[in-house]
Amino acid sequence: MSLYTSDNPVFASFSFYAALLGAKTLLMALLTARQRLSKMAFANPEDAKMNKGGKIKTDDDVERVRRAHLNDLENILPFLTIAFVYVGTGPSLGCAKFLFRLFTAARFMHTLVYAVFVIPQPARALAFFGGMMANLYMIYAIVTTYASAF
Amino acid sequence: MSLYTSDNPVFASFSFYAALLGAKTLLMALLTARQRLSKMAFANPEDAKMNKGGKIKTDDDVERVRRAHLNDLENILPFLTIAFVYVGTGPSLGCAKFLFRLFTAARFMHTLVYAVFVIPQPARALAFFGGMMANLYMIYAIVTTYASAF
Amino acid sequence: MSLYTSDNPVFASFSFYAALLGAKTLLMALLTARQRLSKMAFANPEDAKMNKGGKIKTDDDVERVRRAHLNDLENILPFLTIAFVYVGTGPSLGCAKFLFRLFTAARFMHTLVYAVFVIPQPARALAFFGGMMANLYMIYAIVTTYASAF
Repeated sequence: MSLYTSDNPVFASFSFYAALLGAKTLLMALLTARQRLSKMAFANPEDAKMNKGGKIKTDDDVERVRRAHLNDLENILPFLTIAFVYVGTGPSLGCAKFLFRLFTAARFMHTLVYAVFVIPQPARALAFFGGMMANLYMIYAIVTTYASAF
Repeated sequence: MSLYTSDNPVFASFSFYAALLGAKTLLMALLTARQRLSKMAFANPEDAKMNKGGKIKTDDDVERVRRAHLNDLENILPFLTIAFVYVGTGPSLGCAKFLFRLFTAARFMHTLVYAVFVIPQPARALAFFGGMMANLYMIYAIVTTYASAF
Repeated sequence: MSLYTSDNPVFASFSFYAALLGAKTLLMALLTARQRLSKMAFANPEDAKMNKGGKIKTDDDVERVRRAHLNDLENILPFLTIAFVYVGTGPSLGCAKFLFRLFTAARFMHTLVYAVFVIPQPARALAFFGGMMANLYMIYAIVTTYASAF
């Protein structure tokens, strides 16, 4: 019997949080665009030309948002597969939901303190490790479940 | 009953376009290599050494291809999970196929106008938002389907 | 009947190697942190402030690890979806396991020769193409299986 059906509340929960995290990652592009427009700092001549006063230059605030975006690719994208595979190990709904919520909250927090309000460390480090812990816990559960499939 | 079987034409369609988009993303590496070799502009001393006349330097055309590649990671990789989860909401084949094709066409177009022929804006913006719209529509469908799994 | 169940040894094998590769990608962040701390080279003022003697600067060894990390995003993340879809085409366990192991070995090797021991070319090129071949073979199998779903 497949665990990957909308009848399985763990898979339903994964689906919901995966969509939320997908949206969050995609919308980083708008945060970058907002910074590029407010600083008139672009990466391509055709973009600078489209905006009056636009220049090709590197700007600290733009780079900060881009680093936050890259950090999402490095953490959220692996999560999407790790959490999916974790659903197949048949975890309890309570445990799975806790991990999905912890990871989601940690990653939203990461972007807030990194690229929106810029709060001193260890704010970002805590958000980063919150997400990392959720990922590593699921990886541990998967590897022990499927160890014989090595 | 699982929707994730090759008997489900929506999943078959997802599988086909996921493979196409995976290939497209992977092959960006060859586009970068082509530019690096034609400009003899490398990122690592061991690469410069391997190619007679190679230097470690940053080149505008190489960077352009690398930005197109990064943009694929930012958009195609989230799509792969979003579209997969969307298949589980049981969409009609017509609607799903339309979205998968729209997204695929938009992303191929994005690379063509960004890094192959370099066409002035708003060509790239249109391709970008075509793909983004397909992603956001699927996210909306997932979140409303699974809202109670919050 | 769904192929995405823990009873299917091909899916079990996919789950195992997906978790391993997810862990590998995530842990690149620690390799970067180690380099940043040993060179005291940071990207953000709040990070430099947290570490006595820390400066905001670009360092060759830090950038090398970051390129290895980005290369993982470019190759391992597409693999995670490609291999998942490939499981649905019903491959033999022997063939699937060979591809998953080849890819996993190639990517671990890639990081070792790129960012840990720095071995001259063509070491990195061989590791890169080993992984690429596994991905392209699976893409070919998917596209031919689902060609009618175009």
